[in-house]
Amino acid sequence: MEKTLTPGSPSLTRDDVDRAVRVLAGRLRRTPVVRCEALDALAGARLWLKAENLQRGGSFKVRGALLAVERLAAAGSRGVLAQSTGNHAIAVALAAAGHRLPTVVVLPSDAAPAKVRRIRQAGAEAVLAGTTVAERVAVVEELRERYGYDVVDPYQNPHVVAGQGSATAELLHQVTAQGGRLDAVVVPIGGGSAVAGACLAAAGEDVAVVGAEPENVPAFTAALRAGGPVTVPARHTIADGLRPDRIGALPFALAHAAVSTVLTVGEDAIAEALRHTLLQARLVVEPAAATAVAAAVAYASTHRVTDVGVLLSGGNVEPDLVAAVLADRPETAVRPSGCDGAPAA
Amino acid sequence: MEKTLTPGSPSLTRDDVDRAVRVLAGRLRRTPVVRCEALDALAGARLWLKAENLQRGGSFKVRGALLAVERLAAAGSRGVLAQSTGNHAIAVALAAAGHRLPTVVVLPSDAAPAKVRRIRQAGAEAVLAGTTVAERVAVVEELRERYGYDVVDPYQNPHVVAGQGSATAELLHQVTAQGGRLDAVVVPIGGGSAVAGACLAAAGEDVAVVGAEPENVPAFTAALRAGGPVTVPARHTIADGLRPDRIGALPFALAHAAVSTVLTVGEDAIAEALRHTLLQARLVVEPAAATAVAAAVAYASTHRVTDVGVLLSGGNVEPDLVAAVLADRPETAVRPSGCDGAPAA
Repeated sequence: MEKTLTPGSPSLTRDDVDRAVRVLAGRLRRTPVVRCEALDALAGARLWLKAENLQRGGSFKVRGALLAVERLAAAGSRGVLAQSTGNHAIAVALAAAGHRLPTVVVLPSDAAPAKVRRIRQAGAEAVLAGTTVAERVAVVEELRERYGYDVVDPYQNPHVVAGQGSATAELLHQVTAQGGRLDAVVVPIGGGSAVAGACLAAAGEDVAVVGAEPENVPAFTAALRAGGPVTVPARHTIADGLRPDRIGALPFALAHAAVSTVLTVGEDAIAEALRHTLLQARLVVEPAAATAVAAAVAYASTHRVTDVGVLLSGGNVEPDLVAAVLADRPETAVRPSGCDGAPAA
Repeated sequence: MEKTLTPGSPSLTRDDVDRAVRVLAGRLRRTPVVRCEALDALAGARLWLKAENLQRGGSFKVRGALLAVERLAAAGSRGVLAQSTGNHAIAVALAAAGHRLPTVVVLPSDAAPAKVRRIRQAGAEAVLAGTTVAERVAVVEELRERYGYDVVDPYQNPHVVAGQGSATAELLHQVTAQGGRLDAVVVPIGGGSAVAGACLAAAGEDVAVVGAEPENVPAFTAALRAGGPVTVPARHTIADGLRPDRIGALPFALAHAAVSTVLTVGEDAIAEALRHTLLQARLVVEPAAATAVAAAVAYASTHRVTDVGVLLSGGNVEPDLVAAVLADRPETAVRPSGCDGAPAA
């Protein structure tokens, strides 16, 4: 009998992730695990890069969205709503299009234009509102009352979290199949679904789960200190996907004890890791993924590890940002793209 | 008993490529075949991108170099020499380093700086000389007489050609394993080893081999018209890897009858395909690979095909070129990088 997953309950287990892997097999791309000697040399360890930038919709978020939207469609949903910094919205738009469900998504007013374009290409309506999670959630609530659509929460929906965990589960399988064994897996932290999913996927394995978040938006680090999710100041980061200023309650409940460590990464280090990933690993990733690369290099340099997995969470990056990073103009790269051009603090 | 391959003889067959696949298995990366809906939509067909930009050394050229250098090392070689626009030189440098053989390579005076850096990082000496194949070959000959090293010719060495063919053979296997069937495979043409290898790999299969070369350096097209290799004017192209101004005799002998068609691609179309491959397929490739993407889109648009393979030959690209293409400044992108900044014709 199928288990019912209740929002807000931390009763998710590795079984839910393993089930997600089975349900998604053949419906999504089995993205490759890429190796790169130059990055290995930087880290002093073998890095195994799970290239979810090559996933449908350009990020791992389509995993959870497919599972969650499928449930809603089966239950007779009239349409779906989501708030997101971008990738979850793209993923929900693609998943909903597969069921011909109307979709409205709420993004920050300074969302990455490339992400807004992809959402509209998928046929969804994008509403831009505020810069904090709370502002977006309030707009979603208004829209829910107006339209009667169902909300696909990026952090609180257990199908979403289980689905996101399938990326890490696949990575672990793929490394084993290639004769490797990971000491740790590094995942970026935005709202927390990736790190919660990774903790579920790694449960029972001897693999440390390492979270990576921008120094400028240390929502998980702050939650660990406070003993629960707190809102942090919404400072600018080039890692637009990691801008949620508060960890979701469900991800925090699942991950706070299971995560091995959470590293914060400065803006320059994110930009440098982005440059390395582009030029050495030859993959186009977004800064959220580069944040995980930077953290993996830092983690491997300070821990006795030989093999470290990295979730390259997505590749929906602004062309101008890549151009600035490659031209080695970090001052351009770290400038807020949608904030009147004022330089970041 | 092992077959002896004689330079200059077109007696290579698909067996030689199949043997190369077996010998190289486990020694090189089995690079992924990447799919991308946005490129499929452009082409009106499914494109299967063989991501040899993710190969060791950043291009498929390491395949042939490993096989050829191994033979020389086993025969007691004292050192190796090669001429190249860059990727063959990187590949030979890496292969020779594995046998601790001293290596000197000869590149065009305006070779891509990223390629020169990678050669020196691999421990080889890089000599920059002239801009034509003939000029580089003359310098190699001088060095051969001086040092007594062995030459690894990028076009005439049969082990090199068989090795390069293994990339196409792998692509055909991988597509079949995923339940697909290619109507055609598109490969870029520089000196001709990729297209010759592809013709060998596709022999006996119902797969059209399509060559792609820059409009500005149409060496294969000119050879087809002339009935044999001829030297074409060395005009500038951003596809630095496709600058050889003359097709090798062995590749031409192997490919001229077997190739289905050869398309020439303009500079703007190369830059546009590079931009699409970066932003849609999220792979960092060099313009030579983008030339094949552009040709694949053109071929699929004008032929009744549903599935087209594309050899993404390499990813050793200048950061500045990527930045210029992403910033949509093609006038910068197509300016010769090493020619006193004069704009291309």
